[in-house]
Amino acid sequence: MKVDAGLVFASDTRTNAGVDYVTAYGKMHVYTPGPDRLFVVLSAGNLAITQEVVDTLHRDIASPDAPGSLGQGQYLFEAAQYVGSVSVQVQQRHRDALAASGISGEVTLILGGQIRGSDPEIFLIYPQGNYIHASRQTPYLQIGESKYGKPMLDRMLRTSTPLVDAARLALVSLDATMRSNVTVGPPFDLALYERDRFALTHNERIEVDSGFYERFRAAWQHGMEAAFRQLPAFDWE
Amino acid sequence: MKVDAGLVFASDTRTNAGVDYVTAYGKMHVYTPGPDRLFVVLSAGNLAITQEVVDTLHRDIASPDAPGSLGQGQYLFEAAQYVGSVSVQVQQRHRDALAASGISGEVTLILGGQIRGSDPEIFLIYPQGNYIHASRQTPYLQIGESKYGKPMLDRMLRTSTPLVDAARLALVSLDATMRSNVTVGPPFDLALYERDRFALTHNERIEVDSGFYERFRAAWQHGMEAAFRQLPAFDWE
Repeated sequence: MKVDAGLVFASDTRTNAGVDYVTAYGKMHVYTPGPDRLFVVLSAGNLAITQEVVDTLHRDIASPDAPGSLGQGQYLFEAAQYVGSVSVQVQQRHRDALAASGISGEVTLILGGQIRGSDPEIFLIYPQGNYIHASRQTPYLQIGESKYGKPMLDRMLRTSTPLVDAARLALVSLDATMRSNVTVGPPFDLALYERDRFALTHNERIEVDSGFYERFRAAWQHGMEAAFRQLPAFDWE
Repeated sequence: MKVDAGLVFASDTRTNAGVDYVTAYGKMHVYTPGPDRLFVVLSAGNLAITQEVVDTLHRDIASPDAPGSLGQGQYLFEAAQYVGSVSVQVQQRHRDALAASGISGEVTLILGGQIRGSDPEIFLIYPQGNYIHASRQTPYLQIGESKYGKPMLDRMLRTSTPLVDAARLALVSLDATMRSNVTVGPPFDLALYERDRFALTHNERIEVDSGFYERFRAAWQHGMEAAFRQLPAFDWE
């Protein structure tokens, strides 16, 4: 999410290779290659390809000669171009072998962050390496199983939404998605970035059996039921 | 929806042949071939195939010799088998011509209703003609654009939900879907069936600019915002 106050990142951790091999992997990766820049990458799609992309981004930061790495560049869209090209290269390297096994190696990424001198920004990077960014009208981007959690974002998220409220909304969205699709599951990773800080304001892994999440979920269910009871009667009722 | 008190049917009316030809057609069709039975058919998919299926169902009721028509049979699952076979026949008749134009002729249907001597029931009929029915754990079926409107159903609908509350929940679900996908649009058709009545209790077309729907929508938005304001603070906030 991109609001006036900064950025919010949220992801689940469920990965599956078929219904009989379900595991938990972080899908949120934080890069702070210098005091003037911070990046967060969220991933959806093939886990092996994702890990190779993430590892490559780290390696390139460590090698000052790697052209266009996250440690270089003045504009965030250049970072999106670079991450997109790394993603395409890794996918291409494995495409034939994966295709021979009937497996998709596609990955979709979200890159967000800030480089000093520019505003914070978020980008959705397609498997083909091109990107789109968010807009004032649509101040969020989603990857993976996006539909179940979208209505609440469309209804409630504005660029004026405070950062902690945007974070709560992200949890509401993930909770709705987790209830409707078993391939989305806890724990959740949640990170908040206040603009011009160049470090995460907060970054935590939220377990669903934690006291906070249980209170959060009960409060939301209670609020939904109250909202439902207040709906008007039909004219003919 | 199938609750203890009866059945609720809801549908939008938007049809599109590409983004530049958007029209409104009813997707809810009511059949009352005798005093001991009532059926409602909801449709999703190819409009021309759907219309031919609906017309065939009507014609077969009028011809007493048509085997297995909705006017005959003692069990609702036989009606589902019959509707499925009509759907497959119509799809097959046009399959080659449609495939040559790269068009899908698939239709998915919901058949619900009651035949005296059996409980009310709902069936989802796949394009291949086979069916599934709802369960106590999942007391609803959806076709078409189903994801956006599913979380609220999972959260709120129980078999014990009163019929008018289930109808309100159907509108909440359609409203969420309409906001997130422009191929879903108003007006909405809404029908309620109380068990053992063999006629619809209520059947109306709801325009979104009607006083009722505007009040309904405003109340839901207000309730959502109130629920959101009552969410607990993070431990670190």
